[in-house]
Amino acid sequence: MQSICAVEGVTAAGIKEGKFGLALIRASGTAAAVCTRNIVQAAPIQLMQRQLASGVLDGIVVNSGCANAYTGERGVADAAAMAAIAAEALGTDPSRIGVASTGVIGRYLDLDRIRGQCARIAGSLAADEAAETAAARAIMTTDLTEKHALVRREDFSIGGIVKGSGMIAPNMGTMLGFLYTDAEISAPELRAALATACRRSFNRVVVDGDTSTNDIVFCTATGRRGRPDPAAFARALEECCIVLARQIAADGEGATKLIEMRVTGAASEEDAETIARTIVESPLVKTAVYGMDPNWGRIVAAAGRAGVLFNPAILTLAIGEGSDAVLLVDRGAIVAALDRAKAAMSGKKVVFTLDLGSGGASATAWGCDLTEKYVEINGKYTT
Amino acid sequence: MQSICAVEGVTAAGIKEGKFGLALIRASGTAAAVCTRNIVQAAPIQLMQRQLASGVLDGIVVNSGCANAYTGERGVADAAAMAAIAAEALGTDPSRIGVASTGVIGRYLDLDRIRGQCARIAGSLAADEAAETAAARAIMTTDLTEKHALVRREDFSIGGIVKGSGMIAPNMGTMLGFLYTDAEISAPELRAALATACRRSFNRVVVDGDTSTNDIVFCTATGRRGRPDPAAFARALEECCIVLARQIAADGEGATKLIEMRVTGAASEEDAETIARTIVESPLVKTAVYGMDPNWGRIVAAAGRAGVLFNPAILTLAIGEGSDAVLLVDRGAIVAALDRAKAAMSGKKVVFTLDLGSGGASATAWGCDLTEKYVEINGKYTT
Repeated sequence: MQSICAVEGVTAAGIKEGKFGLALIRASGTAAAVCTRNIVQAAPIQLMQRQLASGVLDGIVVNSGCANAYTGERGVADAAAMAAIAAEALGTDPSRIGVASTGVIGRYLDLDRIRGQCARIAGSLAADEAAETAAARAIMTTDLTEKHALVRREDFSIGGIVKGSGMIAPNMGTMLGFLYTDAEISAPELRAALATACRRSFNRVVVDGDTSTNDIVFCTATGRRGRPDPAAFARALEECCIVLARQIAADGEGATKLIEMRVTGAASEEDAETIARTIVESPLVKTAVYGMDPNWGRIVAAAGRAGVLFNPAILTLAIGEGSDAVLLVDRGAIVAALDRAKAAMSGKKVVFTLDLGSGGASATAWGCDLTEKYVEINGKYTT
Repeated sequence: MQSICAVEGVTAAGIKEGKFGLALIRASGTAAAVCTRNIVQAAPIQLMQRQLASGVLDGIVVNSGCANAYTGERGVADAAAMAAIAAEALGTDPSRIGVASTGVIGRYLDLDRIRGQCARIAGSLAADEAAETAAARAIMTTDLTEKHALVRREDFSIGGIVKGSGMIAPNMGTMLGFLYTDAEISAPELRAALATACRRSFNRVVVDGDTSTNDIVFCTATGRRGRPDPAAFARALEECCIVLARQIAADGEGATKLIEMRVTGAASEEDAETIARTIVESPLVKTAVYGMDPNWGRIVAAAGRAGVLFNPAILTLAIGEGSDAVLLVDRGAIVAALDRAKAAMSGKKVVFTLDLGSGGASATAWGCDLTEKYVEINGKYTT
């Protein structure tokens, strides 16, 4: 699939050798990024926070296999060296290169490997499907699938690739995102739109931007197709991020089902988000979904510990979508429909809607079930 | 083992039929309790919050198999009826009976079963080991082991039984605790001592008192052996609770290892506690312990997302205890000792010590590893 390479002005290349991958993406334009809020920040994040103030990039280099996190001053120098390697390949200044890393924490980058990989792929930068696939695969770690999204409007396109194998709870795993648009948009507008889009997408999925040491989402606007309506651009960017966020949740480590948790009738969007996130991060909810066990009490209990005030006596909870929705609780009254509820959990996507009955705000969060496979994957990662 | 029945003035009885158990404990005296802070409170919790203001109890009745949670007004009436059944058996007033429940949420109590079980065990109330064992087993759900603790001082004793099969993250599972002492202590002193003891023990284990719908810890003081030094009493109560909290963590659902996370060198006890809890609730840390994978980067990353400010560049992290401790990070410098670290993870108990290097406060939290068995247990609970 083509997504970033469908955006005018973007070319990509990638290589994966065992667990060590390198992706190179060339695109010149206005750039913004949203970084992790973890106070233990990986070296590339530290470098980017200094560098992105300029708001311009000519390219991005990403490695997988080594997070270059908790590597001190040497790590920051290594990240800068990685930027310099990519800058040389792209014929630009290192200050115009975005850098991201994912992998094991507490190990130094192998700059010789990165130099070698960069030299081997720089000549193959292209805008075709094979090039995009190579880049998307190069950034994968425990991901099982590449993740692409493309939102087309009449006057602009937005494409993105991400890596992120949904972890068991929010705030745990590294997600990297690389979004591109051919719209012309100012750096402050791009920053604001990206921050909102990330908050409503990646930050509401089981892997989120505010706590791994390495999380970063970049967006570069090449401006090739002129200036769109800023509000329409912001909506399209959010849509693109949500499509990618769902893919991350569905590819959660060991996951067999995507969980979509919609909270409605809240006093504020923030309340709705907090409750939705608390529910999708609940291991008891996640294991119940895995077992197709309509144990809705776990959803109510998770909502109750989210730290948001609401009246538990007037909740409405349903499972499923549209005309297939099965009511479990109706304005506080228990509806006995466990057989139908179990059937509604049999697909690859399980949707819950919890209405708090106390306002007009809503939010959706995405997660995945928790399986034996998750334990197996994470029990022996370093070795 | 005798613990509550080693306290003067306490007799117990219990019965377990399939997954439905009932325990009856007789002890008259000053009483206090710490309840869940979940806003979805089970019916027995709602009843207890009204009733415990008097500060006096003659007995406690506990059922397992049905949580009597999210059962509305009928649930509260059922909890009161359960108190009345026990009060009749003990020849006292229902207002002097403590009630607790654990099990599936959203189901009504079977009062006929409770009445029948109470009638069958009331005559066997005793202070011997068999009676205590029956009571401790009656309150178990997915627990694999009974949990008892006894702290003896020259002038008083404190004994306790608990149920709680450690969940994957704090704030998730029901824990019930029943502590007894023959010390004479006022209700306000007892409340304060119990609140502090719970905060430093059960609230720092993977199952904690502030969020299941049903969590409650009672302490009843029979006063039979006179008035101790209040500070000595408070210390002994905390010790008793910590012994019980460790047992809950070690019996975590599917667990093979107890995790003890010590955070030292913090600016405040609260900071140390927040970091220690965040680490023991991390699924990535829990799976790494299961796999005996010394992936210490996950510990540092979890600390970094705890929401507490510290300087990551001066951390010291060790695994193991005393002379067997293996340094992994020494004031920010990575120490390569992964083979020895792996060996230090081979036992039933894995101890980590993280020194923040920025103050004199400390706190310990307890957790357990995350295994395939946890998923199996929780994937099919309701049925």
